Amino acid sequence: SPSEREGHSSTQSSHRLLAYSDALISIIATVMILPVAHTKVEDNEELRESVQLLLTTKIGVYLMTFLIVTVAWAAHIRLFQVIVHIDDCLALLNLACMMLITFLPYTFSLMATFPENVLGILLFCGCVMVIGLIQSVIVLYAFSRPFLLNEQIQISENLTYYKHHILKVIMRVPIMCFFASIFSFIFFQLSYVLLAIIIFLPYISQSLKWCRSKAIGQVEETPDSMLFYTYLPNEPLSKERVEAFSDGVYAIVATLLILDICEDNVPDPAVVQKQFGGSLVAALQAYGPEYLAYFGSFATVGLLWFVHHSLFLHVTKATRFMGLLNTFSLAFVGGLPLAYQLTHEFPRNSQNELEAIQISCVIVFFAGIFQLSIWVVALYNEQETLHPYVWYGGREHVFMLAKLALYPCVALGTFFLSCILSKFSTSIFHLMEITVPFAFLVLRLLVRIGLALLRFLFCPNRSDLTTV
Amino acid sequence: SPSEREGHSSTQSSHRLLAYSDALISIIATVMILPVAHTKVEDNEELRESVQLLLTTKIGVYLMTFLIVTVAWAAHIRLFQVIVHIDDCLALLNLACMMLITFLPYTFSLMATFPENVLGILLFCGCVMVIGLIQSVIVLYAFSRPFLLNEQIQISENLTYYKHHILKVIMRVPIMCFFASIFSFIFFQLSYVLLAIIIFLPYISQSLKWCRSKAIGQVEETPDSMLFYTYLPNEPLSKERVEAFSDGVYAIVATLLILDICEDNVPDPAVVQKQFGGSLVAALQAYGPEYLAYFGSFATVGLLWFVHHSLFLHVTKATRFMGLLNTFSLAFVGGLPLAYQLTHEFPRNSQNELEAIQISCVIVFFAGIFQLSIWVVALYNEQETLHPYVWYGGREHVFMLAKLALYPCVALGTFFLSCILSKFSTSIFHLMEITVPFAFLVLRLLVRIGLALLRFLFCPNRSDLTTV
Repeated sequence: SPSEREGHSSTQSSHRLLAYSDALISIIATVMILPVAHTKVEDNEELRESVQLLLTTKIGVYLMTFLIVTVAWAAHIRLFQVIVHIDDCLALLNLACMMLITFLPYTFSLMATFPENVLGILLFCGCVMVIGLIQSVIVLYAFSRPFLLNEQIQISENLTYYKHHILKVIMRVPIMCFFASIFSFIFFQLSYVLLAIIIFLPYISQSLKWCRSKAIGQVEETPDSMLFYTYLPNEPLSKERVEAFSDGVYAIVATLLILDICEDNVPDPAVVQKQFGGSLVAALQAYGPEYLAYFGSFATVGLLWFVHHSLFLHVTKATRFMGLLNTFSLAFVGGLPLAYQLTHEFPRNSQNELEAIQISCVIVFFAGIFQLSIWVVALYNEQETLHPYVWYGGREHVFMLAKLALYPCVALGTFFLSCILSKFSTSIFHLMEITVPFAFLVLRLLVRIGLALLRFLFCPNRSDLTTV
Repeated sequence: SPSEREGHSSTQSSHRLLAYSDALISIIATVMILPVAHTKVEDNEELRESVQLLLTTKIGVYLMTFLIVTVAWAAHIRLFQVIVHIDDCLALLNLACMMLITFLPYTFSLMATFPENVLGILLFCGCVMVIGLIQSVIVLYAFSRPFLLNEQIQISENLTYYKHHILKVIMRVPIMCFFASIFSFIFFQLSYVLLAIIIFLPYISQSLKWCRSKAIGQVEETPDSMLFYTYLPNEPLSKERVEAFSDGVYAIVATLLILDICEDNVPDPAVVQKQFGGSLVAALQAYGPEYLAYFGSFATVGLLWFVHHSLFLHVTKATRFMGLLNTFSLAFVGGLPLAYQLTHEFPRNSQNELEAIQISCVIVFFAGIFQLSIWVVALYNEQETLHPYVWYGGREHVFMLAKLALYPCVALGTFFLSCILSKFSTSIFHLMEITVPFAFLVLRLLVRIGLALLRFLFCPNRSDLTTV
């Protein structure tokens, strides 16, 4: 028919639409770290407690926003693993959806600032409901033009079953939000409980199912061909999109400090003339710690990106569970610039400075540990998820392990050293910052020396560890 | 040899490294719009002139930063069109290079604020020199491992010629910066002239060459096989990277306003209690214009992205000249959120409001016109650069033209309407904001009706325009 032919001719690959969506979502996920970073932490004992309370609220908002936005992102991935081609209409609908997703952090920060006011809940629920409606329209539109769908679904016989299943999953969230917004007028605490359930629903229902299947044996309800919208931890996750999203977060986080520096750290000519006798160098020296913080955080974020990049080079298939661990790692990465900024904000050798350095170490440690755990999870199912040469015993296995373990080990070492030698904590921290990039450069050599040493010490007769 | 085998095994596709670099560079290119956006424009006649001067300086810094960063980006593309595989060492060197590129905007804004101080020039030149050195190291490293290079170069006989030519091109800029930094001590105005020459050098030398070749006939100095580093306007440009860079800019620009809203527009509970009697709705109504500005600018940027996306779907090969036009378009897109914010900052029916609306129209117009001109340039060489169905007379040609022309036409119309009916300028502007997304949704229908009308009016006997 002419309409179908036309439909085909205007069909486009969804690649760039998804890359753009990933960029938007990754920016929005990390944006709530800015209010945290811009909270002035005074070295004043009186104000300290109230500031710490404010800071804790803001950090909570950041973490919850990150979680909610990544949940929205996961739903977006699910949707566009089913719909693999787009046309103009879908692209425009997706943009409308994105506009509402980018508004979510604001409604969420209203909720956090005014927990007892229903307006925040209503705005949030309203956004989520409209997003759900748009996604349903997208699904209906795509199923009415099957050439837009994933080939596996296109040729499947139970197309209608798929459609209904997907619509059911998508509409679950808006319907629960509808109830949450009604309850908010009656008893608003219940609304928060409902919202929390919405976010964790897939995980709760999945763990319940898992427990049940372990208790009474395998129970499989969906048809075997059902690959999408299963909520199983090993449900495939588009590796390309995980990479694009992570790249976005790493890029924003790496540049967060330079944004501040460009805006705030250009001195006023009048001030330079008056306070520093016209000497720009003297005026800029006051900002020295900021530059140091910038280079330190850029290098750390850059190297964590490098480790992530190396890891995903060896991953052949990403799963939901790996995606979840990746989200946790990224949430910690988002806090890094803040931690680095704190490191240089306090007077030398104060208790605050020591704390800031230790917080930085803890954040780097967790960011690294979650990256490592992605690899560990991948190793559990290495035939499916990893390239053969990084399998246990593979040629690159030890080298990859060393790459992933370097940051957690260094962070842990710095943490304990700064506890013991608290007087030299800053020097230890700077030394760490300078050494790590070089350690990555010569890591292959280091690993080879280490292995040779181990072989020499413990098993001089084995030869399967020779090639790294 | 074992080292070569090992080299091959650790060789990686450069795809993700380049995507990450594009993300970083696009963030940095647009960041200098923030100081412009955060300049408070008072509706006060006395302060107005000094604020306007400050604003003009900041806009100048923004545009120059955008230009310089895109020049650095173009150099980065050139480099990684020659080096198509990477290994760990190159990835780390590239990260070091990125760190310095992200620092460039700051040095540039120092130069703009303290034009008579040599420090800004020295910092800028220092950064550029180190970037040049790192890039030279990258080239030397890659040519010592030819399996990292583009296949065309790998099999070419004049590998050494290539190496020297590329090194010569890369080192040209740092060497000129070296002289500029020396001159800055003697006669700093000359340094600025030198820096301007550096930026425009490729264009100047190219137009000189072109003039000469037109005057005295074709003069070709490089071997025919030379495809890269030619600085010809039709030198191929990685389409993938143009898309990734543009996506980054569009994503940052679309979210710029929500970043501000999330940070600044959550009212203080104490203020709400005192000034608005505890009514959050009343407090938020004061921010109404900000939300409107956000949705307006998100929609406009999103739709301009949509047009860009549609255009590049039909582009098969991007050239330097198309890249340059794309840069101009993106520079205007970067100013959009600022213009939209201004639109809602002034009292209704004031002269300032009218001016802000007209500035918005002008920015949208230029962003759209440069997109259109990319297409016009592509059409000049349509066999090479476009898909057959958008060639002149092709099935999708008129539809694509309508898509590209919609925003410039609407912006022009709004501009003139707001001149004539200056009292209703705001209403006209809002009407435009609401209508345009729907116009895009039904554009295919509109084009078909328009063509049918044209056919009916002018040439009822022709039939080659029937299928759109």
